[in-house]
Amino acid sequence: MFGPMFSTPRASAATGSKAWLQAMLDFERALAGAQAAAGVIPDDAAREIGRRCRAELFDAEDIARRAVASATPVIALVHDLTGLVGSAAAPHVHRGATSQDVVDTAAMLVVRRTLDPVLDDLRAVAGECARLAREHRGTVMIARSLLQQALPTTFGYRCAGWLVSVESATSGLRRVRDERLAVQFGGAAGTLASLGADGPRVLGLLAAELGLGEPVLPWHTDRTRIAELAGALGAVAGVLGKIALDVKLHAQTEVGELAEGAPGGSSAMPHKRNPAGSVLVTAAAQRVPGLVSTLLSSMPQEYERAAGSWQAEWEPLSEVLRLVAAAAAHTRRLLSDLRVDAGRMAANAASTRGLVMAESASAALVDALGRTGAQELVSRLCRQVTEKGSTLRDELLADDRVREVLSHDQIVSATEPADYLGAATAFVDRALSEQEDR
Amino acid sequence: MFGPMFSTPRASAATGSKAWLQAMLDFERALAGAQAAAGVIPDDAAREIGRRCRAELFDAEDIARRAVASATPVIALVHDLTGLVGSAAAPHVHRGATSQDVVDTAAMLVVRRTLDPVLDDLRAVAGECARLAREHRGTVMIARSLLQQALPTTFGYRCAGWLVSVESATSGLRRVRDERLAVQFGGAAGTLASLGADGPRVLGLLAAELGLGEPVLPWHTDRTRIAELAGALGAVAGVLGKIALDVKLHAQTEVGELAEGAPGGSSAMPHKRNPAGSVLVTAAAQRVPGLVSTLLSSMPQEYERAAGSWQAEWEPLSEVLRLVAAAAAHTRRLLSDLRVDAGRMAANAASTRGLVMAESASAALVDALGRTGAQELVSRLCRQVTEKGSTLRDELLADDRVREVLSHDQIVSATEPADYLGAATAFVDRALSEQEDR
Amino acid sequence: MFGPMFSTPRASAATGSKAWLQAMLDFERALAGAQAAAGVIPDDAAREIGRRCRAELFDAEDIARRAVASATPVIALVHDLTGLVGSAAAPHVHRGATSQDVVDTAAMLVVRRTLDPVLDDLRAVAGECARLAREHRGTVMIARSLLQQALPTTFGYRCAGWLVSVESATSGLRRVRDERLAVQFGGAAGTLASLGADGPRVLGLLAAELGLGEPVLPWHTDRTRIAELAGALGAVAGVLGKIALDVKLHAQTEVGELAEGAPGGSSAMPHKRNPAGSVLVTAAAQRVPGLVSTLLSSMPQEYERAAGSWQAEWEPLSEVLRLVAAAAAHTRRLLSDLRVDAGRMAANAASTRGLVMAESASAALVDALGRTGAQELVSRLCRQVTEKGSTLRDELLADDRVREVLSHDQIVSATEPADYLGAATAFVDRALSEQEDR
Amino acid sequence: MFGPMFSTPRASAATGSKAWLQAMLDFERALAGAQAAAGVIPDDAAREIGRRCRAELFDAEDIARRAVASATPVIALVHDLTGLVGSAAAPHVHRGATSQDVVDTAAMLVVRRTLDPVLDDLRAVAGECARLAREHRGTVMIARSLLQQALPTTFGYRCAGWLVSVESATSGLRRVRDERLAVQFGGAAGTLASLGADGPRVLGLLAAELGLGEPVLPWHTDRTRIAELAGALGAVAGVLGKIALDVKLHAQTEVGELAEGAPGGSSAMPHKRNPAGSVLVTAAAQRVPGLVSTLLSSMPQEYERAAGSWQAEWEPLSEVLRLVAAAAAHTRRLLSDLRVDAGRMAANAASTRGLVMAESASAALVDALGRTGAQELVSRLCRQVTEKGSTLRDELLADDRVREVLSHDQIVSATEPADYLGAATAFVDRALSEQEDR
Repeated sequence: MFGPMFSTPRASAATGSKAWLQAMLDFERALAGAQAAAGVIPDDAAREIGRRCRAELFDAEDIARRAVASATPVIALVHDLTGLVGSAAAPHVHRGATSQDVVDTAAMLVVRRTLDPVLDDLRAVAGECARLAREHRGTVMIARSLLQQALPTTFGYRCAGWLVSVESATSGLRRVRDERLAVQFGGAAGTLASLGADGPRVLGLLAAELGLGEPVLPWHTDRTRIAELAGALGAVAGVLGKIALDVKLHAQTEVGELAEGAPGGSSAMPHKRNPAGSVLVTAAAQRVPGLVSTLLSSMPQEYERAAGSWQAEWEPLSEVLRLVAAAAAHTRRLLSDLRVDAGRMAANAASTRGLVMAESASAALVDALGRTGAQELVSRLCRQVTEKGSTLRDELLADDRVREVLSHDQIVSATEPADYLGAATAFVDRALSEQEDR
Repeated sequence: MFGPMFSTPRASAATGSKAWLQAMLDFERALAGAQAAAGVIPDDAAREIGRRCRAELFDAEDIARRAVASATPVIALVHDLTGLVGSAAAPHVHRGATSQDVVDTAAMLVVRRTLDPVLDDLRAVAGECARLAREHRGTVMIARSLLQQALPTTFGYRCAGWLVSVESATSGLRRVRDERLAVQFGGAAGTLASLGADGPRVLGLLAAELGLGEPVLPWHTDRTRIAELAGALGAVAGVLGKIALDVKLHAQTEVGELAEGAPGGSSAMPHKRNPAGSVLVTAAAQRVPGLVSTLLSSMPQEYERAAGSWQAEWEPLSEVLRLVAAAAAHTRRLLSDLRVDAGRMAANAASTRGLVMAESASAALVDALGRTGAQELVSRLCRQVTEKGSTLRDELLADDRVREVLSHDQIVSATEPADYLGAATAFVDRALSEQEDR
Repeated sequence: MFGPMFSTPRASAATGSKAWLQAMLDFERALAGAQAAAGVIPDDAAREIGRRCRAELFDAEDIARRAVASATPVIALVHDLTGLVGSAAAPHVHRGATSQDVVDTAAMLVVRRTLDPVLDDLRAVAGECARLAREHRGTVMIARSLLQQALPTTFGYRCAGWLVSVESATSGLRRVRDERLAVQFGGAAGTLASLGADGPRVLGLLAAELGLGEPVLPWHTDRTRIAELAGALGAVAGVLGKIALDVKLHAQTEVGELAEGAPGGSSAMPHKRNPAGSVLVTAAAQRVPGLVSTLLSSMPQEYERAAGSWQAEWEPLSEVLRLVAAAAAHTRRLLSDLRVDAGRMAANAASTRGLVMAESASAALVDALGRTGAQELVSRLCRQVTEKGSTLRDELLADDRVREVLSHDQIVSATEPADYLGAATAFVDRALSEQEDR
Repeated sequence: MFGPMFSTPRASAATGSKAWLQAMLDFERALAGAQAAAGVIPDDAAREIGRRCRAELFDAEDIARRAVASATPVIALVHDLTGLVGSAAAPHVHRGATSQDVVDTAAMLVVRRTLDPVLDDLRAVAGECARLAREHRGTVMIARSLLQQALPTTFGYRCAGWLVSVESATSGLRRVRDERLAVQFGGAAGTLASLGADGPRVLGLLAAELGLGEPVLPWHTDRTRIAELAGALGAVAGVLGKIALDVKLHAQTEVGELAEGAPGGSSAMPHKRNPAGSVLVTAAAQRVPGLVSTLLSSMPQEYERAAGSWQAEWEPLSEVLRLVAAAAAHTRRLLSDLRVDAGRMAANAASTRGLVMAESASAALVDALGRTGAQELVSRLCRQVTEKGSTLRDELLADDRVREVLSHDQIVSATEPADYLGAATAFVDRALSEQEDR
């Protein structure tokens, strides 16, 4: 009932039963091919096996059910595959492989296939962040610290911050995808004993066949690949969760600076613009750390092959992939038609009647009055603003001591948010130029 | 591909899309009934609505897909239900309810329906533990501490320990099921404003209609129920994980004291008796804490209704239910045909050639030699056992100082594991009698 | 550097090295006393041992350092204690006990001692919630759903929600404290073998001596007590985290409905009222679920005594106690001088110019126009409100169709938040009356 | 009481209050230096400030206590520092910085200082793994899968697996250390507004001064650095936890293949060799994933500066550093004097009386009998082994069909574990040669 909210159609397909089945069959096909190339099994057998390694020839649900008895789907799979191929090829099915070889290699394929569109979405998210940073490079907005208005900034600078974080987390994920996905092939004990001296050569051929990395060793109980993937996905989820958090906060009725392009609504409550996209990204991101924790907890695995911790990885791995896929796709959509209300941003920046410009005002007075003198004077005027409901600009303009040292225009500028942005736009440019360099 | 290993057929059905759909419809039916009873809507409308609240009249997958746009499946559900009922009843569908009322109440129904067979399985697990405790009350086994052989105990005592922990965790889960499942009904703001003064009365009728508790208040952002359920499920998973850990350790080739009745095997490795059941329980239990963590992390929810944290609960709740269901069912099966090798237990207890009886031997000598004297003498003899490959009994029998103070029979008894069980059997009886008292 | 923010002085003292040391010594003292009472050791020895079981006679840091070699502080502790007592009592120190007996029992004492002031703070938190609920029973505030303004409610109702959740989570914690804290005493294998038949009697006397529960069995590898405690603390943290989340959201500059009595400030930013208390509660609560997860993950413990998972409990247990203590104390302080700005609440409720009253307006029109007719008319008027910047009340008053069926006063009432509170105050009363019944 | 077991003296010092204090002061000193270099403040002021930025001039505990009021230690720190410097320098203390600039930069320094000895220990762990892999390249040991004996391998190959995983996890951690530690400096809103146009230049000078990276942007709410560090530490913990798990399993009384050089013991149980080091590594590793989860959960931080999630990072960051430091140091010690019992390994490999050689025997027969024929024959003989208590070698030698096709020597070889190691030693060489290439 909730699945589509926490996945994408592509991620669901790529992590579903049929996808796992096909990935396991891809292992068997490639293994036969590699062994034929190495002269370990006949070419005919490899061709015959390859012909049958198509998911539609198998009953995925039935294999999944039969997996319960042995805690692995591979025994049923190999049984069915062996039954499908002719008797000449049958003895050559799954030669020298252990069930973990099949599932781990399939996992790598599933990861790669799921990640590719996710990386596309993340690239698009970065692109939207860059576009927003560029478009709103100078759109004045109040920065908020501990949920309190602080000093002026620009909305573009915020988007530049999103951009840098997305690029950073994405590059971590891309590195895992490009460098760490490796074939698994070690046989029951990791020694490839039944292949005699041919083991390492078949391992290399198998990796080449599948386009996966060739590991130094079979990695049955070395789960660093899974851990690194989990960590990288966790970072991506966190970064997207931060964007969604910002959007939903900016979209609050009382803030009103951002709105999703297609907010959820309600006929009974016509004013509501539910930030449905941000809500789903938030929810997806929130579920990831617990799953990362499970994957890390599963790293210590017994001896040559684990009795439980490996098996604990299977579903969480698919799940974390789906959640990150959903978060990336929702964020992409969300940003691509984000409504930015620059007027509301300006109004909010003015809503403290200039109190947020106190630091700026002090700075303007510091040369004449010294740091302490400037701050005390401004603090006194700020109290008057609060008591009288006036503005800081008015109080500055009305203060004799101030008028002695600052002109009217200087006072106006010192209380103008757009004149107190520091390096905001310079930082936007740094972020954009770094992105272009990638 | 992995689902059946980490669920049961009943739990999968009870937490699946159709089950959630029916539970949401049960809410709508019961709401209409309660409102008719309260005179808020016409009886005819309630009857008509009730007639249509059957999952088979709806397209669960389609509703799930349409949920993405608004971050809730309820808008689509109510739309379709309204379309199904006649125009007279249509305005009375979902009266005064908010989407969270539907999903939270459905969650409570899903929890109850999933838990009932789980509690049956847990009762059976406790029964098996009790049976084993009784049957093996006096079956001598070596206790192990930090994975090192320590002192004798009985296998029945271990099973009594399992029993007590299962009873304890189960009673926590049963308490949540019996006392904490409550209807949710508060409307958009929790005030039931659209029902005027009738709100609380309808709330009470609705609870009665569904056989759920009536909460003091609507609990949209009070997630203690979910937290308590998560905590109770976490404790159950931990307890079952401990049993599975013990079984798989005892089933090690080198220990060989227990075997599953239907171990996984391998034609290439005929000696293997893979503890497939324990492996699955281990894996399921290992995944639960991360999900509990997610559910607890989701407790702080904004204002009257959350923007993400509530939505983060949905899938983990179903998932943790399925995992605990799987763990309970697998453990039940595992224990019901557990093979206990008492001979191997005795052999293992003897495998240190009596060194594990050193404390017992010292105790036998303490009256004559004092504590320090006894320990020093026994330590010396133990070193001889190690060096010479003899047994502690032989060394004691051959030692003049010992023979002065202990008879042959006393020495035999002091080195006989069955004579140094302390309160093991008394503790078994305490556990069994406490269980009978429940 | 950060410790005091995430603890209280009392919790730091109660979970510190000296407190653990004293609790372990309390076990040794009580054990000697119980064994003397049972006739297992001489009264004189018990008295002598009891006299030396005072933390100030030991070097806690040194014992902690020496713990590394054996993965337990108990060996060093018992060594030092044995050295302190006279030679007559020395052989009677720690009789029949294993190191886990000492640490587990000490943990129970540490838990009890830490929890007592925490439960006081939680009682006070509930009291503050009740006070606020009573005082603001009718203080109109806009309810917010998905961070969007929804319908009117009262601030008192929100506080009633806090109250119910605090009571609920606290009662769970109190139940664990009252019913589940039990002495640990089983000896190396849980059989109390070295005490012969006296074991269970000494166990009972020991429990009585310490005022802890007597377990059915020693619970070395039955960690349900720890799990239940962790779950209960997790629920409390979540409940307090929700209060803090609300306070910091209400305290946003743009919302301004609540402020902490002693907010953090800044001379450079005189308008800031940092919700420092809420921030600390939020941070503390956020750290709890990961620790609960660790404690649950540690439940599966090997055989009779664990090789790592038990040891993993020690620091997280103290830490989660400190975090919950900090959260409770900060929340208590926070609520006791919370500034409630009813004027700002009213202003915010009016800020959509009546759009939040659309449901109320429709309800007023439903008898005359039917449900659909009423909703369509109100929706049209709401669009006008948005376009023209008028108020819903004005639009209703100006609409001929409306004026045919509603009087001026009826229109005013239908757009008056205080007249559309549903059961808000009734629910406040339910919560208060339930609290009084406790 | 437990601290030293879960840290190292160096890690405790490097993450303690005084170390944090000094790191915060290092920021203030370097900031003044950078601002003097940029001409923002006078050189004299920078020198004076630098002179006072020494932890021993401050009261760390007092600052920590005063941190509670404002949820940050920086206000108290800056107050005290300002008081220490002469009045000429006072206005130039902490110029343009916000409290998060101080704490985040200090965190980076604390991380770097803590990691350096950890990376040394990890390098030494890898060295020990390599040494063991080399020494035991050919030491026959039985591989175990699901805790069941499977096929022969060598202990050196296991150590090669440890080596590869340690290298892999360490290189991830080193990359974070080398590439991702960056200075934090953005001022209240991240704009460095109070520095006017000088902000980015001061940022660069500050980074250079501290030897930390210069970030593209201030990263107040971009927590990817922390997430990547957490992920890398999590992988290291998992890898060390796997080694410890193996050691404690091999050290079981019934397995007896490995022992720690300095096992914990017991006078009452002289045979015990408690794997205390492995136990502590296990416990430390088990606690890491929950903390990683907390750090990842804290990534979504509000707007420009967080209200709780940032603060939640502080203690877990120090804690996870200490735990990984402890795990690395304990593992280093553990491996450096690990006792390997090759005789026991050989005996265990023989303990199934040749059943583990069934695959090897089948392989020897496959050319003559075909795959199915060979497997059936061997299976029959294996059943005889089990029934008669004989060995597979004897059964093969006694079987007429076998004797027709295999010579005596061939049968001996087919049942000799050392002759069925597949690529075990070749894989050892791959791992060692890859390590040398680094």
